[in-house]
Amino acid sequence: MCSDHADVLVLGCGLIGTSIGLALTEAGQDVLLHDSSQEHVQAAVARGAGRPWEGAGPRAARLAVAAVPPAATGNVLFEAQSADLATTYTHVSSVQSLVQADVERLSCDLSQIVGGHPLAGRELSGPQAADADLFAGRPWAVCASSSSSAEAVADVHALAQACGATPVDVDIDAHDATVARLSHLPQVAASALAGLLVGQAGAVQLGLSGPGLVDSTRLAAGDPELWTQILAANAGHVAQPVRSLAEELNALANHLDQLAQGDSGPARAALHDFLEQGRRGRELVPLKRGRGSIDFSTVRVGVDDQPGRLAALLTAAGAAGINVEDVHVEHVPGRPRGVIDLLVRAESRASLSTALRDAGWDVREGDHSAG
Amino acid sequence: MCSDHADVLVLGCGLIGTSIGLALTEAGQDVLLHDSSQEHVQAAVARGAGRPWEGAGPRAARLAVAAVPPAATGNVLFEAQSADLATTYTHVSSVQSLVQADVERLSCDLSQIVGGHPLAGRELSGPQAADADLFAGRPWAVCASSSSSAEAVADVHALAQACGATPVDVDIDAHDATVARLSHLPQVAASALAGLLVGQAGAVQLGLSGPGLVDSTRLAAGDPELWTQILAANAGHVAQPVRSLAEELNALANHLDQLAQGDSGPARAALHDFLEQGRRGRELVPLKRGRGSIDFSTVRVGVDDQPGRLAALLTAAGAAGINVEDVHVEHVPGRPRGVIDLLVRAESRASLSTALRDAGWDVREGDHSAG
Repeated sequence: MCSDHADVLVLGCGLIGTSIGLALTEAGQDVLLHDSSQEHVQAAVARGAGRPWEGAGPRAARLAVAAVPPAATGNVLFEAQSADLATTYTHVSSVQSLVQADVERLSCDLSQIVGGHPLAGRELSGPQAADADLFAGRPWAVCASSSSSAEAVADVHALAQACGATPVDVDIDAHDATVARLSHLPQVAASALAGLLVGQAGAVQLGLSGPGLVDSTRLAAGDPELWTQILAANAGHVAQPVRSLAEELNALANHLDQLAQGDSGPARAALHDFLEQGRRGRELVPLKRGRGSIDFSTVRVGVDDQPGRLAALLTAAGAAGINVEDVHVEHVPGRPRGVIDLLVRAESRASLSTALRDAGWDVREGDHSAG
Repeated sequence: MCSDHADVLVLGCGLIGTSIGLALTEAGQDVLLHDSSQEHVQAAVARGAGRPWEGAGPRAARLAVAAVPPAATGNVLFEAQSADLATTYTHVSSVQSLVQADVERLSCDLSQIVGGHPLAGRELSGPQAADADLFAGRPWAVCASSSSSAEAVADVHALAQACGATPVDVDIDAHDATVARLSHLPQVAASALAGLLVGQAGAVQLGLSGPGLVDSTRLAAGDPELWTQILAANAGHVAQPVRSLAEELNALANHLDQLAQGDSGPARAALHDFLEQGRRGRELVPLKRGRGSIDFSTVRVGVDDQPGRLAALLTAAGAAGINVEDVHVEHVPGRPRGVIDLLVRAESRASLSTALRDAGWDVREGDHSAG
């Protein structure tokens, strides 16, 4: 074994690969970077994500991470393993079974390979959008196959932890079925909703839309090429949830038809049940990453629209000894005033309100609970 | 006409009615407040939304606004008009045709009545959650009937403008058809998506969900009672878009089935078209309220997790003479560091980056465009 081998070799310097490099470098690890685009490597190196891999092997690093689109991942792993570049090989594919099928077909040494999937991302892509904190507090699925060695699994756990994520062991098929429901189905729903707007541009131009439409179509902004690859690769798991969603909506349309034809008690009850079920489902959704059972609360403050007011408000919160976790400003240009929501731990809410009010700030009444 | 009549009488001191009172009071208008709950009136008065209406009439105010749930609105308008409380009557119902049918059935003087619907709201309800800025920069549908007088229409325009909103003239049926597609359909989609999670609690417990699930199910947290009323009242307009959404999803499920049975060129092309259509639809969605064609850009800064860093950063931005429009903090408790996104006008982006970098801040590279 070469004495100057690195800790990790990142193969693919896009958003995810470069973010891994940044997180690991920050954690003190030695990272080698490679990409088919020399420009991407240079950008990732300039960001501080590691040093360029000069093509030297074998055993360039302890761990090799393929961070390329799902359809290319199997080949990248095979080529890396053929050149004996590492001891353990992992990847970051949104669909695990596709990659596993590819590495089995290519006759890789399966004991060295453990799938991984950090549940993180941004709408942006490329090394410039990378972030050392992208994975902080996020789950990172670790998908061992029956052939994976315990040593390789431990290496992938260590990778996730070094990136600030929480490793979650899950088998390949369960992973793909779960992300089909929790990630791929919402993507499909957002694209379908947004797609219907194309035929309704006139309605949209009326301007009668609120913030709900913005949130519920956000995922539709994703890259169609990448999502075609992901959904096609996981089609077997995604088809059924999509059909279930369609069936729910069809049943509801029938109830709405009955209601439109005159008030119908059973249809109204079914509509109410549908909405109540949705409310219960929403309560299951984890809202804040990495925050587990911590309760947060919001303190709302009205402020004049003058430069420096936001800074002064945060200074006042700091003077009260309270850590502000997040800030949201509701302010429309041209209006003389705005409101600022300060997110704090629930137990700090009352003392922050009192301290700010005592200092003359316009603290709004009411329980602005977080979420 | 009584010489001491007020400008506006608000009938119903919930979130919307109290917010109207706050906005108008701030605009210098004299507002009377009424609610069947004396507690709500007291809370609204305490918030500064106006003074309690003592039940005196006729002509207590120039304009009466019914701010009660859709099913109760017609009756409130009828009773107010019977007591001759105002010259013009309006309301804030999410469904206009229901109210119009009710006031026609009750034989109101239709010339004095003009429907209204501010496209604004919060997940919270009640006078405590009210906000003078709730309507700022939002559209406010003004739905005259063929019987409405020009004077009454002008009064409702003036109301919307005094609340900081933009009046949008639209006929009653077009309003209901439009909100069915832009507001009620996303509500239904979110409830259906979230509702499916109830049967999948095990999958949710795996923790493998990302921010997309949070956004796409947010609307499902809405009050099932209120939404049953709204959707039932607009069932005739909502049923067809819900069915169209179901059909889109069913067609996609068929394509996914074909893909699962082996790579199929046509199914893959259909999947890609579906996603591309969604991306185009998303581009139609107005993302920032009241900001028209103003371009915004984000400057991303890495900061230590120390109290006061956020305040110091904003002070530095202020010192550079740049107005920060919004702030977003990405920070996970326990992590030594976070990133802060500062939203500024696009033309200020470069100078803010330079100023902060010169002052020693860790400004991140890349074009973090807003949206």
